[in-house]
Amino acid sequence: MTDTSPRSNRQFRLARRPVGVPTPADWQETTEPVPPVPAGGVLVQTLALSLDPAMRGWMNEGKSYIAPVALGEVMRAGGIGRVIGSEHPDFAAGDRVTGVLGVQEYAAFTAAQARQTGLARIDMRLGSLGQWLNVLGMPGMTAYFGLLDVGQPRTGDTVVVSGAAGAVGQTVGQLAKIKGCRVVGIAGGRAKCDWVVNELGFDACIDYKAGNVRAALKEHCPRGVDVYFDNVGGDILDEVLARLAMHARIVLCGAISQYNNTTPVQGPRNYLSLLVHRARMQGMVVFDYTDRFPQAIAELAGYLRDGRMKSREDVVQGIGQFPEALNRLFTGANFGKLVLQVARDDALTG
Amino acid sequence: MTDTSPRSNRQFRLARRPVGVPTPADWQETTEPVPPVPAGGVLVQTLALSLDPAMRGWMNEGKSYIAPVALGEVMRAGGIGRVIGSEHPDFAAGDRVTGVLGVQEYAAFTAAQARQTGLARIDMRLGSLGQWLNVLGMPGMTAYFGLLDVGQPRTGDTVVVSGAAGAVGQTVGQLAKIKGCRVVGIAGGRAKCDWVVNELGFDACIDYKAGNVRAALKEHCPRGVDVYFDNVGGDILDEVLARLAMHARIVLCGAISQYNNTTPVQGPRNYLSLLVHRARMQGMVVFDYTDRFPQAIAELAGYLRDGRMKSREDVVQGIGQFPEALNRLFTGANFGKLVLQVARDDALTG
Repeated sequence: MTDTSPRSNRQFRLARRPVGVPTPADWQETTEPVPPVPAGGVLVQTLALSLDPAMRGWMNEGKSYIAPVALGEVMRAGGIGRVIGSEHPDFAAGDRVTGVLGVQEYAAFTAAQARQTGLARIDMRLGSLGQWLNVLGMPGMTAYFGLLDVGQPRTGDTVVVSGAAGAVGQTVGQLAKIKGCRVVGIAGGRAKCDWVVNELGFDACIDYKAGNVRAALKEHCPRGVDVYFDNVGGDILDEVLARLAMHARIVLCGAISQYNNTTPVQGPRNYLSLLVHRARMQGMVVFDYTDRFPQAIAELAGYLRDGRMKSREDVVQGIGQFPEALNRLFTGANFGKLVLQVARDDALTG
Repeated sequence: MTDTSPRSNRQFRLARRPVGVPTPADWQETTEPVPPVPAGGVLVQTLALSLDPAMRGWMNEGKSYIAPVALGEVMRAGGIGRVIGSEHPDFAAGDRVTGVLGVQEYAAFTAAQARQTGLARIDMRLGSLGQWLNVLGMPGMTAYFGLLDVGQPRTGDTVVVSGAAGAVGQTVGQLAKIKGCRVVGIAGGRAKCDWVVNELGFDACIDYKAGNVRAALKEHCPRGVDVYFDNVGGDILDEVLARLAMHARIVLCGAISQYNNTTPVQGPRNYLSLLVHRARMQGMVVFDYTDRFPQAIAELAGYLRDGRMKSREDVVQGIGQFPEALNRLFTGANFGKLVLQVARDDALTG
């Protein structure tokens, strides 16, 4: 282990609420002394942070499934860290943990905070640190419960997933293949499409940047779409709505195309296709399934181990890159689960 | 019985596909000889026709849950009739029947047509002819299965229904009250709102024509909306989406506000509220439940008999009034289930 004597804690705080795509001026970089180990608590060094589309929503004012980040507060982010000091019976120095660390190099948790935010040790035998932020982390949990609990795919179903090369999409598609479905991805660009088909084994992938999504859906989903796992919203949601099979299920997981809108959200004009096809559209939030994470992690780790599931992380180096790295999600520049590496750990990119 | 020697059959045919609200020029009135009783079939005199918002959709070209009415074809309509000639073992002269009679004074069915279109005798002891087009007919079936199967209300839930004084809405609200829910209607105008509250026993009714639907929803649904039965779409759907309770269910039954659009359908801008509230929006089509109609009819007839459920029909006299009467649905001029009386029958308005 290196860095055993930390001196300062570099942080990114929310300086103002963005209008549209976040800009550097929306962030305030601060440096504070590394906090002491709280009485009965834990001090964690951040190794890697998960950068997720949902973070854009947390920057907005107003009611959602989680409170917004306050102005001046360290930006909320999930991550993987290393315990460097503990007075907590469940944690020991050297443990790798997952939790809401925030965009900072060190995070201190009282026992109450550790419990409330779900700080938990992770078993490095199940996957690399990168995989613990991806398949075995929130994106994987979102994919698992969204697809299986909400989407309820049956063998032979046609499953379509947007953001197919992203963190959630890659696991949704591979899991649907494992469950015996025909899987069609939607992603931006040839490289991502080639990867999900050639490396992940999707049956097809539609490059929405290449144009005619409608015709491509018709070609690749001749019997319609039974399950659509939606990460993007916007026009693509409308195109899939126009292609539903009877009794289809739409899993509403996100709408990244709309998160930086400065105009109102684009509602799905084809929503009456739900009526015509006796279909449903249902929202899901991964935090509802925390009790069942261990079961999902065990199953997904098994697929990683036996090679039936692969993962790809897009790792950006250095906490200073945070503002720019986050925006890669909104331009579609990331390829795979976007990870911000904050400190070195030999197990990270596995 | 009167009219035992019919001479002519007056009909309304679809002359062209309407753009926006149907106009007189969209219809062609024809008069043909009354057809003979088909070999092995049935000849029915139309007593009353059901005028429904869904008919507007049938006039459009394109794929839906049912084939469009062809140009030149007699306009499709459900109705109640009297058998005036039969070579079919299941029907005898004098029987009252329900079926897809079309907008015409007489309808002939071969045995195959009678079976395919669901021509069926009705038991006049269970309700008046008007009620057979309303609570005991398609609107009642739509209300029953939409609310109970798709909406799945639980005791104490807050149920909101739009088009509350209409054919489907009146039964949805009363049934939800019987099932122990708090019921808030949305209707156009004070008279309709007063009726659903004072006569039908809804807990409240919001007059959308009076303005602030958002504030009224907040006032009448302090714990949010658990079930929304949507007959209207448009802005009202968006307002209810903004007021959902956790795990809410939206029953997508219709979208009358959008049926005469000459611009694209207005998609629900607040659809991401489904995500925030882990809610679902699901379409339903009543024809999926035909096997279970007898059970629903028996239950609803029981409520009519014991006075727990009331019904209101808005009866327009004379087949010649058809074009104008149909449009009453789109202006909101109808008050109660809209019925076009084509021939006299003493039991009609019960």
